[in-house]
Amino acid sequence: MSAAPPGAWVRTVALAAPSLGDNTADAERLTDALRRELGGAEVDLDLDLLQRLPGMLREHGYRVRCTVFPDRGRFALTGVAAADTNRIAAGLAIDLGTTRVALRLIDLATGAHLAEHGCDNPQGVIGPDVLARIHHADTPGGLNELTRLVVDGLNEAIGRICEAARLAPEAIAAVAVAGNTAMTHLFLGLEPRWMIREPYLPVVNRPGVRRAADLGLRAGPWARVLVFPNIGSYFGGDLVAGILFSDLHRRPETALLVDVGTNAEVVLGNRDWLVGCAGAAGPALEGGVTRMGMTAGPGAVDRVAIDPASGEFRLRTIGGLPPRGICGSGVIDLAAQLFRAGMIDVRGKLVPPACGARLRVVDGIRYLVVVPAAESATGGPLMVGQPELDSLVRSKAAMYTILETLALTVGLRLEDIGTVFVAGAFGCLIDPRSAIAIGMLPDLPLERYVPIGNSSLEGAAMALTAAAAPAEIDRIRDRITYLELNVNPEFMQRFSAAKFLPHTDLGRFPSVGREQLNRHSGA
Amino acid sequence: MSAAPPGAWVRTVALAAPSLGDNTADAERLTDALRRELGGAEVDLDLDLLQRLPGMLREHGYRVRCTVFPDRGRFALTGVAAADTNRIAAGLAIDLGTTRVALRLIDLATGAHLAEHGCDNPQGVIGPDVLARIHHADTPGGLNELTRLVVDGLNEAIGRICEAARLAPEAIAAVAVAGNTAMTHLFLGLEPRWMIREPYLPVVNRPGVRRAADLGLRAGPWARVLVFPNIGSYFGGDLVAGILFSDLHRRPETALLVDVGTNAEVVLGNRDWLVGCAGAAGPALEGGVTRMGMTAGPGAVDRVAIDPASGEFRLRTIGGLPPRGICGSGVIDLAAQLFRAGMIDVRGKLVPPACGARLRVVDGIRYLVVVPAAESATGGPLMVGQPELDSLVRSKAAMYTILETLALTVGLRLEDIGTVFVAGAFGCLIDPRSAIAIGMLPDLPLERYVPIGNSSLEGAAMALTAAAAPAEIDRIRDRITYLELNVNPEFMQRFSAAKFLPHTDLGRFPSVGREQLNRHSGA
Repeated sequence: MSAAPPGAWVRTVALAAPSLGDNTADAERLTDALRRELGGAEVDLDLDLLQRLPGMLREHGYRVRCTVFPDRGRFALTGVAAADTNRIAAGLAIDLGTTRVALRLIDLATGAHLAEHGCDNPQGVIGPDVLARIHHADTPGGLNELTRLVVDGLNEAIGRICEAARLAPEAIAAVAVAGNTAMTHLFLGLEPRWMIREPYLPVVNRPGVRRAADLGLRAGPWARVLVFPNIGSYFGGDLVAGILFSDLHRRPETALLVDVGTNAEVVLGNRDWLVGCAGAAGPALEGGVTRMGMTAGPGAVDRVAIDPASGEFRLRTIGGLPPRGICGSGVIDLAAQLFRAGMIDVRGKLVPPACGARLRVVDGIRYLVVVPAAESATGGPLMVGQPELDSLVRSKAAMYTILETLALTVGLRLEDIGTVFVAGAFGCLIDPRSAIAIGMLPDLPLERYVPIGNSSLEGAAMALTAAAAPAEIDRIRDRITYLELNVNPEFMQRFSAAKFLPHTDLGRFPSVGREQLNRHSGA
Repeated sequence: MSAAPPGAWVRTVALAAPSLGDNTADAERLTDALRRELGGAEVDLDLDLLQRLPGMLREHGYRVRCTVFPDRGRFALTGVAAADTNRIAAGLAIDLGTTRVALRLIDLATGAHLAEHGCDNPQGVIGPDVLARIHHADTPGGLNELTRLVVDGLNEAIGRICEAARLAPEAIAAVAVAGNTAMTHLFLGLEPRWMIREPYLPVVNRPGVRRAADLGLRAGPWARVLVFPNIGSYFGGDLVAGILFSDLHRRPETALLVDVGTNAEVVLGNRDWLVGCAGAAGPALEGGVTRMGMTAGPGAVDRVAIDPASGEFRLRTIGGLPPRGICGSGVIDLAAQLFRAGMIDVRGKLVPPACGARLRVVDGIRYLVVVPAAESATGGPLMVGQPELDSLVRSKAAMYTILETLALTVGLRLEDIGTVFVAGAFGCLIDPRSAIAIGMLPDLPLERYVPIGNSSLEGAAMALTAAAAPAEIDRIRDRITYLELNVNPEFMQRFSAAKFLPHTDLGRFPSVGREQLNRHSGA
């Protein structure tokens, strides 16, 4: 991960006092000084900042701390304070997910984290997945409604995170938003309807830098919002942010970035090339693994182990609270452990004799009780149904097939990949052992798997403090080759072969084969 | 005057149809095509234009006529229409004067003039001159009031000029505003208070390009407004526009640009250097020559001749209507003729015997009846008082002294100046013979005087159609040396010598001396 020298966009300047011999206007007096600080780039002022500037400069004795934000080779002045102010100039990084939204408040001068906050994407009331919302955006007033929902939700979250950091929202001088293409469009009020119709066109690839005021975001009056660019309808700014953070685009050796969220999103590459692919292109991932449980949060089961001797379930929950659901990493652990314990078969189907008393049948559908009612926080049992396991099998097959296809496309074997960065939000990190056990991720030595947390949020945060970030973001976007799976005829064939645990071809997962062998030989 | 190739900012582009092999987003599909048209410069889209873009592109079959506006090396997209539209894309040039406002509507594609309109600056209700308005801006709510007055007035004028051209105001894609520094500040809502306090600082020298919507101007939703830059508090964008139009900054030979409006504004220079000076710096010009009469308009006396034999006054009025006042050029003619007829002396004082029946004394002040009540449109006599003649003498002395000081500063004699461009608004053009006769302008051969009309309006119009104009405007601004008369010790001495008609040193005005000689010898 590249070093992010913080504070590049906070500059304190002492201006020459005006005199008859130097009667440059207030604005140019300031921007000339800033330009020297910023290596010659021009600085622009909003009209309402110009209107307040003379008073501010005189109040502060022509010694001011300025916040600026880079915008296409120039800078926007986003705030002016006294040179000796002790007020924090804040930046806000936002990971705008389909299901969850994560925010981080940063001190722009030091890069210090001031607060973090997470909340559900309030568009969830319209529909849980991207497709439902895109269809809703097509109904009269639907797009406005979706945009208002997310902007209002963000503003509420901004209120909360600022409260936690004891800052006024007006202290926010810069915002960076990374989200998938659909979420970004709905946030900006852009029609998403052409994204889901051939040839799948977004309205914009590079939304660029906008005024927070124009977007209706609570922030300082001159705050700017960098909206991460996308590569297409199915490859969004969240992944560009992830690449920025993982530094994939600057490494000499080929590495893989994997984000298992609502969709499976994957980038393979190095400093010379980048190829990306996203699971929404594969129909199997519709709905994703999250259908099974809850998003990560207090009380979510995030680790599962089944004692091979007793069959006892050992669960870990986020915050150590009584379980109220199971998050993505917990679901993958569960599937791996159920498979290992023989409670699901190679097709992911529940095996009644092995499940024993944990099996329930409701309306002809089989369920496995993960947490009995007496132990759960909800008062009811936490169960996983066969349809959800089927969905997981499709999801993991899609992820593996995407990786396989991607590697084949560039003429690489999966085992040649040196590092796999595994992104995951909210501390709900996939255990690579479990992901390998079910054949979701390739069977590489565990030390090659590097968890990097919410890489979308981290990348957004970098965009606010790293001087080189704006240029790098554009370079990443322009360099990625997006692999369209819809037009790949072999994809479905590989996908079918990957719908077994771990795979039809067990030779690809030698560690899983060895473990099965050891277990069956009683080791 | 430089050629203005029109239509540079109106471009029709046919975009490649989207396909699975080319799923570039709508916005980049358009901006990539425009960039090729515009020599590689990037094109930016406002958010609300992005929001409407997908519908517009599909409605027009991806063949569109776009209007763009240059902004700091990039372009803003200001409008999108069908490729075969017959709707005019309009530009609006505004000369924002202290007393009068002139507007011209232009077809951006052809450069054709669609309509012109003039109106009083509605801030006149606050005060007739710059100083009164600057003081008013310092009172609570005063600045807002002044800004609202001028913006509302401009919007009313926009309504009228568009009506005359049978266009909707939304057809306006670009606006250029040239005004003195104070008028520009009041238009933009910028505090003018520091302009009149040492060291006389404007808020901004380069207001740049703004969105019409941000300024509250009636125009197309994405229209841009270029606000001409100033060199200081007393040297405004109107003069920069005048230089642009006169081409002073690109001529090999040294020429002079003279604008006798409320203030005397003067630029001397050639393609190598430019020196400017403005009369507001000389206290004698406060109030200016317009105090005597009315601004140019129907019924204004703009030419005066006095028959040397009969003493009869021959007047010409604008539109040939009964006289209702006297405008700047008429006042200068009048003074020249009164002096020639001996009705005023070398100090500009009325000579009672020579004035005869035309003399009136009211409250101890002498007046000369220019138009008897029976012949005027107002029902009362049109009179010129001694205080107004005194003011004119100070004004003409200031103008001459400014020219003299300017020439001396650059080591030039006034008689070496090849061309004198005389700017004047609303067809009220000074007759150089009269201006020379009273010693306002130097005694050069008449053919060196070139009237150029409202050069501020002409320059604003050029900014809308000439591809090179934006860069030239910045170059002009950066090249001008502003001569501060307040700090020039010899100025007051020269000014005193110039307060005679035509001058203490008659040798400077040989043509006037010859004429006097001829007249007295009965020729």
